[in-house]
Amino acid sequence: MVKALLSLLLVLVTLSSTLGKPEKNIPKRGKRIVQTLSRGWGDQLIWAQTYEEALYWSRLKNKPLMVIFHLEDCPHSLAMKKVFSEDKELQRILDEDFIVLNLMYETTDKHLSPDGQYVPRIIFVDPSMTVRADITGRYSNRMYAYEPSDIKLLRDNMEKAKKLLKTEL
Amino acid sequence: MVKALLSLLLVLVTLSSTLGKPEKNIPKRGKRIVQTLSRGWGDQLIWAQTYEEALYWSRLKNKPLMVIFHLEDCPHSLAMKKVFSEDKELQRILDEDFIVLNLMYETTDKHLSPDGQYVPRIIFVDPSMTVRADITGRYSNRMYAYEPSDIKLLRDNMEKAKKLLKTEL
Repeated sequence: MVKALLSLLLVLVTLSSTLGKPEKNIPKRGKRIVQTLSRGWGDQLIWAQTYEEALYWSRLKNKPLMVIFHLEDCPHSLAMKKVFSEDKELQRILDEDFIVLNLMYETTDKHLSPDGQYVPRIIFVDPSMTVRADITGRYSNRMYAYEPSDIKLLRDNMEKAKKLLKTEL
Repeated sequence: MVKALLSLLLVLVTLSSTLGKPEKNIPKRGKRIVQTLSRGWGDQLIWAQTYEEALYWSRLKNKPLMVIFHLEDCPHSLAMKKVFSEDKELQRILDEDFIVLNLMYETTDKHLSPDGQYVPRIIFVDPSMTVRADITGRYSNRMYAYEPSDIKLLRDNMEKAKKLLKTEL
């Protein structure tokens, strides 16, 4: 019995160390953590990779787009990310009603930085491809910034973004 | 002894089912696989997310950029990806000497589709931000397409791309 359990343990340990790990090039500095598109902002959401892709999906699905600008070494971004990713209601609404994109580098499209380039910054875009510069946070010097305590305001703004602009397109 | 082993087993099983899994919004259709930036083209490489980001790193590091256009439901892309990701030498050279980007959606930059938009398609870009339209595969109708059997040609082309263009920038 002990022997059987020991064998089982060995099998478990072996399995856990080989599963999903085919032989790969391992960089000199050691094995890296695989990069994800979510970057921790919601691992269960379907993230667009680029702004072009996000606009494509937004138009096709007729859903507003949320663009999050952030940096991984910015404590404000990290604090916001924690609250954002743990808010189940916010995540559910994003999953059902939004196209989502998070970026660490600016795009060439100036409309995505109505009052400058800073992080964290959250911009909504209507499926008509109009940046919703009217949907802002509470800081007059950085109108699209949100702090963790602003999560309720962010959810309210998501409701605003869901009321799509009427366009003649 | 048996009891101790059983406890250890229980701990292992509990650990493996909870580790790295904080409570999350689970979409109605069930838990999704987390999307990666590599998309299977080399999980140990550091992938740029967007073309803008890739150009930034290429200039900063003075390394050529490889852009792979592909689709996850294209059998030619999948066959190429398998050979590409399993070629340790190719992966090592990419890791050390290239900036890498894989895209499933076209960018707005026409220079990235010198002879049209198709997949799989591999385009090299010099750190001077010049698309290396001179570095081609073996098919005259789709000059930037590669088949799995062309992997040696692709490695040769990587060597060409590493000989940087001289620019007056």
